[in-house]
Amino acid sequence: MVAPVRRPNPRLSNLEAPDNPGELRKQKKTVQIYDTTLRDGSQGEGISLTVPDKLKLAQRLDEFGAHYIEGGWPGSNPKDESFFAQCKGLDNAKLVAFGSTRYKGTTCEHDKNVQALMKADTPVVTLVGKAWDHQVSVVLEATLDENLAMISDTVAFFKRKGREVMLDAEHFYDGYKASPAYALSCLHAAVKAGVDVLVLCDTNGGTLPWEIDEITRVVVAEFPTVRIGIHCHNDMELAVSNTIAAVHAGATLVQGTINGFGERTGNANLMSIVPTLQLKMGHDCVGDRLQQLTDLSRYTDEITNQPHVPNRPYVGASSFAHKGGLHVAAVLKDENTYQHIDPVLVGNERRILVSELSGRRNILTKAEELGLHPADESKDGVEWNVRVKAVLEQVKELENKGYSFEGAEASLELMLRRTVHGYRPPFELLDFSVSTDNKRVVYGNVLNATPNNESVTQASVKLALLGPEDGGDQCPTKICFEIAEGNGPVDAVNGALQKCLLPVYAPLRSVSLVDYKVRILDNASGTAAITRVMVEFEESSNGKRWTTVYAHPNIIVASVNALMDGFEVAMWDQLPQCIING
Amino acid sequence: MVAPVRRPNPRLSNLEAPDNPGELRKQKKTVQIYDTTLRDGSQGEGISLTVPDKLKLAQRLDEFGAHYIEGGWPGSNPKDESFFAQCKGLDNAKLVAFGSTRYKGTTCEHDKNVQALMKADTPVVTLVGKAWDHQVSVVLEATLDENLAMISDTVAFFKRKGREVMLDAEHFYDGYKASPAYALSCLHAAVKAGVDVLVLCDTNGGTLPWEIDEITRVVVAEFPTVRIGIHCHNDMELAVSNTIAAVHAGATLVQGTINGFGERTGNANLMSIVPTLQLKMGHDCVGDRLQQLTDLSRYTDEITNQPHVPNRPYVGASSFAHKGGLHVAAVLKDENTYQHIDPVLVGNERRILVSELSGRRNILTKAEELGLHPADESKDGVEWNVRVKAVLEQVKELENKGYSFEGAEASLELMLRRTVHGYRPPFELLDFSVSTDNKRVVYGNVLNATPNNESVTQASVKLALLGPEDGGDQCPTKICFEIAEGNGPVDAVNGALQKCLLPVYAPLRSVSLVDYKVRILDNASGTAAITRVMVEFEESSNGKRWTTVYAHPNIIVASVNALMDGFEVAMWDQLPQCIING
Repeated sequence: MVAPVRRPNPRLSNLEAPDNPGELRKQKKTVQIYDTTLRDGSQGEGISLTVPDKLKLAQRLDEFGAHYIEGGWPGSNPKDESFFAQCKGLDNAKLVAFGSTRYKGTTCEHDKNVQALMKADTPVVTLVGKAWDHQVSVVLEATLDENLAMISDTVAFFKRKGREVMLDAEHFYDGYKASPAYALSCLHAAVKAGVDVLVLCDTNGGTLPWEIDEITRVVVAEFPTVRIGIHCHNDMELAVSNTIAAVHAGATLVQGTINGFGERTGNANLMSIVPTLQLKMGHDCVGDRLQQLTDLSRYTDEITNQPHVPNRPYVGASSFAHKGGLHVAAVLKDENTYQHIDPVLVGNERRILVSELSGRRNILTKAEELGLHPADESKDGVEWNVRVKAVLEQVKELENKGYSFEGAEASLELMLRRTVHGYRPPFELLDFSVSTDNKRVVYGNVLNATPNNESVTQASVKLALLGPEDGGDQCPTKICFEIAEGNGPVDAVNGALQKCLLPVYAPLRSVSLVDYKVRILDNASGTAAITRVMVEFEESSNGKRWTTVYAHPNIIVASVNALMDGFEVAMWDQLPQCIING
Repeated sequence: MVAPVRRPNPRLSNLEAPDNPGELRKQKKTVQIYDTTLRDGSQGEGISLTVPDKLKLAQRLDEFGAHYIEGGWPGSNPKDESFFAQCKGLDNAKLVAFGSTRYKGTTCEHDKNVQALMKADTPVVTLVGKAWDHQVSVVLEATLDENLAMISDTVAFFKRKGREVMLDAEHFYDGYKASPAYALSCLHAAVKAGVDVLVLCDTNGGTLPWEIDEITRVVVAEFPTVRIGIHCHNDMELAVSNTIAAVHAGATLVQGTINGFGERTGNANLMSIVPTLQLKMGHDCVGDRLQQLTDLSRYTDEITNQPHVPNRPYVGASSFAHKGGLHVAAVLKDENTYQHIDPVLVGNERRILVSELSGRRNILTKAEELGLHPADESKDGVEWNVRVKAVLEQVKELENKGYSFEGAEASLELMLRRTVHGYRPPFELLDFSVSTDNKRVVYGNVLNATPNNESVTQASVKLALLGPEDGGDQCPTKICFEIAEGNGPVDAVNGALQKCLLPVYAPLRSVSLVDYKVRILDNASGTAAITRVMVEFEESSNGKRWTTVYAHPNIIVASVNALMDGFEVAMWDQLPQCIING
């Protein structure tokens, strides 16, 4: 009844390597990670990065261990020039400026784009050059020889200036299929001029994995001493596959973006490629920093204000979540029955959607991190487990309403602290009022008058500042009622709060709001949509940052509460001793 | 200078087939589409289908040309049983009921699950059976021989009942890597019992494409007369790739779901697989009905209440959208420079996005799409090119401040229309006022009182409703001053605006706000942060949607202006003729 035993193929046996690290190590090669989120990624629809956004992302990519960070295309827009002027002090990664080869009929010395690349003053320059004869004729309207000279001249120019130079051979695979000789001659032109890396691009995302494999092998054999890179797009949902196929065929550098952001259907998704290269194919890219993967992905969603995609491979909230009854039962018997890797390796976690077991453990861990211990239970006789369960249920109920504590741990900390017997908040909100008035100063014959709008926003808050519980008559609760103007409602409320709180708690002077995000939840329902507000704070004296979240149908109510919670967090470490003397 | 010419591999030449349909036809084989959206897809987090939803989707899948529709797992829940009782009258597709092989230690006649499958009364039955020895021991806690008997008995039982029977060989690839002989013996057990199709499952989604290729070839060679199917999961973002690799290796049936819905990271996405099989690999699946692909994907998003994912390959709103100036210029010269297929083949369309990365061509194309033509230039003597350049510069300046027009094309349209000589807006904003007041109704001894917050938000707007330019005394500009309450400031302003505009423009009744997004943009100077607001509108009568964007330091001012712009867009098609009589 049993079929004839077949010997597994030796390649396959190597790929069972997670059980056999020794086997892995023998195979290991370093595959370099080249991130282009800041350039190609920002061409994705809906992705718009400010210069500070780009600086923050570059920092995180550097910490993650990316080998190259492509910062932008200087000369194409002022934002990218400003980024290169400000981006300094990367620890590991090399900064790359991207641009095209010189235009036809000019020299590098006179080419504006080439000069802008020089001015960016980066150690690495990546040049996009055409490798498909049809495109050279139709789009560049240049001769085939002129295109080769454009590649050759520009590579040589930057090599003379001491730069590391990569050629992004645009449309390489389509070009090779149409005219293999010409496609290869473009690469030869770059190699003769001293290029450091040849990056083969599947620009339109229309090449199949076995074509990638075969053509890449041709190039690797043709240029045995040059590093080969790969750049894929996801138009057939094959960008990850095509990228690893190229590595399988000999490429040692991969270009891609965080979360696969990029034009049309996106670039190759490094969040899937890096773990597959390391955990499945036995190569090394970023070593143990792979555990930052999930955080990096979610941080980038936040920076770009993109919704989290829960079913994203490796990093999504659903990636290791089990819903089907059969799956859940099996996973509880043996973790590996329905998961292909240990989620900890990529900084993610397993979730059982129908059970609260895993959730309770998270809450307990969090409480311990905060120094809240089961010992606290005795004071009011409520068991610690009961408290934790109550918090967990509250978290679930709130997340079901659209809260997201993942990005706002300070709010979760507040919930936990508030469950501790004897916790006394430093203040309570009694009333508030916020108004914005906008007057067109000159009107009458409205179409001809020059409008001259004046808008004024003001806010008042009434707080109860709570003294110590045993303050008695010496140190009673004090009512504070203040009003302030601001650029907008959040600014005005912030001003009024500070007028109340600063006199009793001077360190708040160094606390400022650094980010504010709003999203409408359950927009499909259409009726009373809930607004979720997240506010990020920074204490400038120590650089500490924290974020609070609040959801309410009224954006003003949500904003005021998120602000208040943020100040409460700021006042933990050193509560005012006696307010009346403050 | 030109490298030695290499002959392209014959396989590769076949794959250039779009230019050569004759070549394609020779290769063509039919690959059957087996949809499991209604069963495996509904295990995705956040996916919940009612019976009427399932019936509608089955209908659409039938129209699309799916060969098999797996409706559910009768016996696992009453919803699925009800679906099978009601689903009648499919034209092309065969309805499939899914279930497991009989349990250990019983017979098919006594197995509740097997009996529920019988009761579903479908022409096709798919049985899931284990093919990995480790899982048989750990999860089933059965002997290896007992598992073979479970497969064999259950297949034979349904064959005796005249059903077409498929075996979903669970964990087949992992099982083969661990123990090839046992994995194959499971397939042999099914084949000896008369199974019609062997479906090889990569249940955990952890198998690499070249492993899929190699192992599938072994199975195809072992069972030359049996149809082979493939079932993949997307845990490494390789489900599409692995599915087409199996077809490349000889499989002729593919299981997957619409939009890749499914447990964890999802099942293989048929929306990417079907067009790639037909357009790139030259197989036939659904013929010309491929043009329904985009509609089917979006309809399914609607039915399952999932947000549209714009960068989804083939079917997303961004899949054929071009943003980079270099790309746009090239696409306008030759459509195929940056798109791998004609979007019409899958029912999608090309779009040109406008952003700071774009050049003049993007703006010109956009203007033409709007029906604004160079002819308009003559009226005030300003050349069209000068206008377009001015708009482009304004776009770049505004995007540098943090606007993002690519998500808000309506605002760009407004800018373009406003440059046309003689454009007259339907109304202008004079004043507005928005206030939110929150009172804690009971306070005194604040710590002991139960807080009872009441918040009230109200807004007033004063508008000039502009009659036609030549309206004269018969139809003068009218001032409107209204006030309304709301859940929050946007809701209140919306209410006041509607009170002004509805009397003169009744169709606004069917316009509603469907989304509202806010983001703070870091200012390089670090002083007054700018708030960017995006508001999405929908006209319920025709489903049309549009988004406007406005950035201002004051969130209220930004929101009011984005709202006003959105209403101005809504009023384009049919401006009020004479307001005073409205």
